[in-house]
This record gives sequence, C-alpha cells and structure tokens, in this order.
Amino acid sequence: MRTLNVDLGERAYPIHIGDNLLQQDLLRPCIRGRQVCIVTNETVAPLYLERLERALQGLEVEKVVLPDGEQFKTLETVNRIFDGLLEARQNRTTTLIALGGGVIGDMTGFAAACYQRGVDFIQVPTTLLSQVDSSVGGKTGVNHPLGKNMIGAFYQPRCVLADTGVLKTLPPRELSAGIAEVIKYGLIYDAAFFDWLEDNIGRLVVGDEEALSRAIYRSCEIKAEVVAQDEKESGIRALLNLGHTFGHAIEAHQGYGRWLHGEAVAAGTLLAADLSRRLGWLSEEQLTRIEAIHAAARLPLLPPADMSVEQFRSLMTVDKKVLDGRIRLVLLQGIGSAVVTSDFPAELLDETLESRLAMARTG
Amino acid sequence: MRTLNVDLGERAYPIHIGDNLLQQDLLRPCIRGRQVCIVTNETVAPLYLERLERALQGLEVEKVVLPDGEQFKTLETVNRIFDGLLEARQNRTTTLIALGGGVIGDMTGFAAACYQRGVDFIQVPTTLLSQVDSSVGGKTGVNHPLGKNMIGAFYQPRCVLADTGVLKTLPPRELSAGIAEVIKYGLIYDAAFFDWLEDNIGRLVVGDEEALSRAIYRSCEIKAEVVAQDEKESGIRALLNLGHTFGHAIEAHQGYGRWLHGEAVAAGTLLAADLSRRLGWLSEEQLTRIEAIHAAARLPLLPPADMSVEQFRSLMTVDKKVLDGRIRLVLLQGIGSAVVTSDFPAELLDETLESRLAMARTG
Repeated sequence: MRTLNVDLGERAYPIHIGDNLLQQDLLRPCIRGRQVCIVTNETVAPLYLERLERALQGLEVEKVVLPDGEQFKTLETVNRIFDGLLEARQNRTTTLIALGGGVIGDMTGFAAACYQRGVDFIQVPTTLLSQVDSSVGGKTGVNHPLGKNMIGAFYQPRCVLADTGVLKTLPPRELSAGIAEVIKYGLIYDAAFFDWLEDNIGRLVVGDEEALSRAIYRSCEIKAEVVAQDEKESGIRALLNLGHTFGHAIEAHQGYGRWLHGEAVAAGTLLAADLSRRLGWLSEEQLTRIEAIHAAARLPLLPPADMSVEQFRSLMTVDKKVLDGRIRLVLLQGIGSAVVTSDFPAELLDETLESRLAMARTG
Repeated sequence: MRTLNVDLGERAYPIHIGDNLLQQDLLRPCIRGRQVCIVTNETVAPLYLERLERALQGLEVEKVVLPDGEQFKTLETVNRIFDGLLEARQNRTTTLIALGGGVIGDMTGFAAACYQRGVDFIQVPTTLLSQVDSSVGGKTGVNHPLGKNMIGAFYQPRCVLADTGVLKTLPPRELSAGIAEVIKYGLIYDAAFFDWLEDNIGRLVVGDEEALSRAIYRSCEIKAEVVAQDEKESGIRALLNLGHTFGHAIEAHQGYGRWLHGEAVAAGTLLAADLSRRLGWLSEEQLTRIEAIHAAARLPLLPPADMSVEQFRSLMTVDKKVLDGRIRLVLLQGIGSAVVTSDFPAELLDETLESRLAMARTG
C-alpha cells in the first residue's frame, strides 16, 4: 500500500492506494464519533457493502442504498441521504462513507457538507474514474437539468481508500472511461507519464493490477499537487478540466448517464486537441498520438453524430468556466503542457466542432 | 447610519444599520461582477423590490420571487433559485441579494453557498428578527420534515444592510417575534442591555424607530462578538440558542409557519428560565421579570396546549445540539449569564415541561 498526503493545511487528508484496503485499521483512525452512514448504490452494495460493514463492527452503522447512474445525481437523491440520516437520528459527530463511483462520492460529499452544516466523510471509490479523479480534490455536488455539477460545495474528505482490488469487478467500458482521466493527467502535466501510458495502454485496458496501481498513484499525485496549489480553482486547477467543457455539453445533450463521463471527456479532449492543432500549438503528429492512445483505450474519438455546432455553443455557454460570456477552454501547448484561455478565434472553435461532427456523421 | 464590522478574518463583513439604506452607494462596493440576482418573496416584492432594483441600475438583474412562509423553507424552494440562476445564465461572478426575512436570508445564503460551489451574497433583512439574528453569523440552510435547519452551510455575506425604515410595514406580530430575539441577547450576555429593554419595551413594541435602531445595533454587536469568537459553533456561540431547542420542537410539532420563530423562541426561553429556576440558578423574582418583559412584548409565555412532554422529548432529541443522545440546553445563571449544559436531572426537565403545559391547558 502507498499513501499520498493531500496538503491542504488543516483540511489535509491521506489517500491510501493498494489492494484489499477495506479493513478496520485504515478506517478507524478517520472516524471520530460512534455513528457512521454508508452511502452506496444498488450495483456496488451486493459486491462490497457487507465487507465494509464488517470493517465497522462495534459502530452504529446506517446504510443508504441509492439507484445507480449519473441521471440520479440530483438534489432529490441527496435528499434521500438526509432522510436516512435523520430517520436514524444521526448527529453532528457522524461520518458519512461514500462507497461507489464518482456519482456516489459527489453526492455523499455534498450531503456531508450540508448535513447539520457539515459532518465528516470518507471516500471509498470503487471505479477507476473516481479513484483518479472525483475522490481527490474536494469537489462535491449534483447536476441540474440545465447544467452539470451546478450545485455543490468544496468539501474535503477525512481520508480516501482507493482499493485496486475492487477494479476486478468493474465493467470494461467503465475501466476505459477511467483511463480517459488518467491520460488527461499526462496531457496537461507530465509528458513522461504520457509516454509511459503509451507503452502500457494495452496492460491498463485489460485491467493489469500492477499497471493500474502505478497509473492511479501518479494520477492522484498530480491531482493532489494541482489541488494543493489551488484548492478553490482560481488558477492552475482549471487545467484539470481538459475536455470537460466539451464533455459536459455532450453529457447534457445526450441526457446524463447515456455517455459515461470519461467517454464524454475523451471526445472532448480530442476536440480540445484538434482546436489546439488548428491554433498551431500542437503538431499533426502529436494529435495523432493523442488519438491513438484514446483508440487503444477503446474510447470514443468523436462527439455524438446527432449534435450540432449550435447545440455545443449553447450548452457550453452555461458551463461554470464561462466568465462574462466568453467561453474559456483548456487547450494544449504540446503534450504535458496546457493553458486555460478564451483567447482563440470563435470561428476556429466552430470549425473544429464542425469538422469532428462531420467525421462522426460519416461514421 | 452606523456600521459594525463582523471580524472573521478574510470572511469579515460590514453590517450597516440605519434608515433608508437601499441605495446604490452602499450596495455597489459589495458587488464584484456584472450580474446580480435578487431573491425575495411575494409579500416583500410589492413593497421594496422596485426600490432595490433602482439601486442596481446598470447591472444585469435577475429576480426570483418565492412564496412567503417558513413552510416553504425547503430544498425544493432553494431549487427554484437555482432554476432562476441557470435560466438567466448567471455565472460564478454573480451576487445573490436576499431581500426579505430570515427564511429568504437562510435560503438565499444556502443557494449562494451551493451555486457553482459558492458565489457572493448580500443580506437585506426586512424583518426585525432577521436584522438582529439570521443576517449576522453566516448560518444558512433549510428545514427537513424531520428537523429544522438540518440542511445548510456556514457561509458569510459580503455585507448586510439593516434598513430600519422597512420595519414600518412589518405586522405587529412579527415585530414582537423579533423583540423575542432582542431580549435573548440581554438574557445571555448583557444585564445592562436587559435593564434598558425593560425600560423601553413599550417604545419597542409600538415600533419607535430610535428605540428599535438602538436595540438592533446592540443585538448585532453582541451577536457579532459571539460569532467572531466561535464561527462554527463549537463553544460560546451555542449560547445564542437560548430557547431554541424547545422552540424548534414547538415549530416542528405545530408545522412550520403556524407559530412564528420568535414566538416559539419566547415560549422556549421561558421553559429554559423555569428549568433554571428549578435548578436554583435563577430566583423567582428573576423569572418573573423575564415573564413580564415577554408579556409586555406581546409574546406567548407558554408552550402550545396540545403538546405533551413525550412529544417535546422526542422532537428535542433530533436537535443538532444533542450529542450522543444527551439533550444539551442553554440555561440561565442569572440575567445576563448563560451556559450550555446537559448536566441537569431529566426529571426536572420533565417537571418543567409538565408544569408549563398544564398552565397552557388551563389557559
């Protein structure tokens, strides 16, 4: 097992990464009261809920099992967590434990931020995506019909347990979606890590534990470094959103849950890379490498064929990264280097969208 | 006009108190972007919305008008604020302005805490209660069917405008409810202020502006002092809850909105005072003074006749101030001095409830 420390002063917390971490001795030091509430979903509960409960013996354990899927990441579903907490008379000293993917983590963290104006919580992410992304950095929240993650809080967990063993039960499509975020870390921050990913993409995509463990560790390390520099996303942290402004538009258009978040990010990353190339910031060869690694990870390279440029522009304008009407995007200046900018010709964005949508339409 | 500064480090903010404050030059320094969203209710909108809008000329102003009443202080109603913000495409630089009483302030503050994970907000409290209580201290949130203020955040406004002129349109019952909280500050913190209140209760209850202005200033000053010492309520701040644990039980039992918050707090304060007297901490004469000032303020002295001791105990156990099953109460040790304690015989609490409920039943 390896442990990373996310350095946020009095809100610092450890991330433990390794096989078979759902044990008492890792959880107990993070629990301050006698009450805990495990929040999970109908897919994960039959697999891991009992194991986690065993690790919590002796505590007063409440369980809330939610339906599975991004379409349930709503205020109404978070209210079911509040119902469970209040029916069980859980008080301010309780600890919420998120057992599941990013949707469970985001909702549980938000519920912890709001319940009695803030209680402790622990993340036990069970997907690759949530292990490398949503469990690190304190972003919590829910979607609104008019925009993704529009309602939420910055709220840090007391600790994160990223158990690589649970990835064995992850469907291949979700493994690929997680790899999309891993690739992102190489693209925005670390060219050497991107090279390593190119060499090992075959092992990752079939779930090789040693390769995954290394990829998770480095991804969390990069994210922890970035978040420690900029907890509230006023600067460098925005680079983590590579592909996300496009991706959110795709998810909003398709209806949350039809495209996996990582799949939408992959198609969005390639839109950002393509626009970067049109700006002359990325070479044709670099764009090809980026397409190739996404293809090898079995990720979509193109946006949905049924979307239009207009729909993209409209959905992207509501994104949180829009300031005073200007669309700000994370763009690449080579592999391993990214910038946030609104300084690009609007026509070039339209051209990029038009071009890749046309490719999608012709299959 | 007088200005108090609530000293919370980087979250410090000013409270302006005086007549006719809804003007541009006080609001503008608190607004950082081009967008604002005024949140108000159907009662206040016809009275003051237009005046506030005039003070915001030149900005992009969105308005959300909610139904009036504590029964609407729910997650669903807050969601209507999010709908308005997103439909108007308001971004992270927007400023929410709460124009109304405590319910509007609590919901708007909570919406500001959660919208895009946090935007600015300004409080323009239009009731005496909200001017002396909920607009100071950063507690925001909504009720849940199983408990009051169970969902929320600590979130500070950028500034507060307490315009004493707007109290002229306040119904007498609401003025009295506000006076209940003013009396509370004297009881827990400042015997000399309590003496002054006894001398001036007749002026306050008929809405004398000079007396109200002085009472608001000293109340905010006390609250600001207490909150600055203990922002997250781990210690002294809990004293502000005198009468509230009983009061919340009354409100929950009656259904939110039937008893005004200040009325429930008044009946609760007298329960706390009565229990304090039974503990020998308060003299018979002091209890009589406390009853007399509440009577002069036209506030209820007794809990609802249709409640039982059992209902009180059950509803009080779910209160946030309960730690590990022990009911903690704010009790008085004389006028001007209070403690938070769970160190009292349970029988004495039952006796107090039984006695005052019996008095209520016999009218």
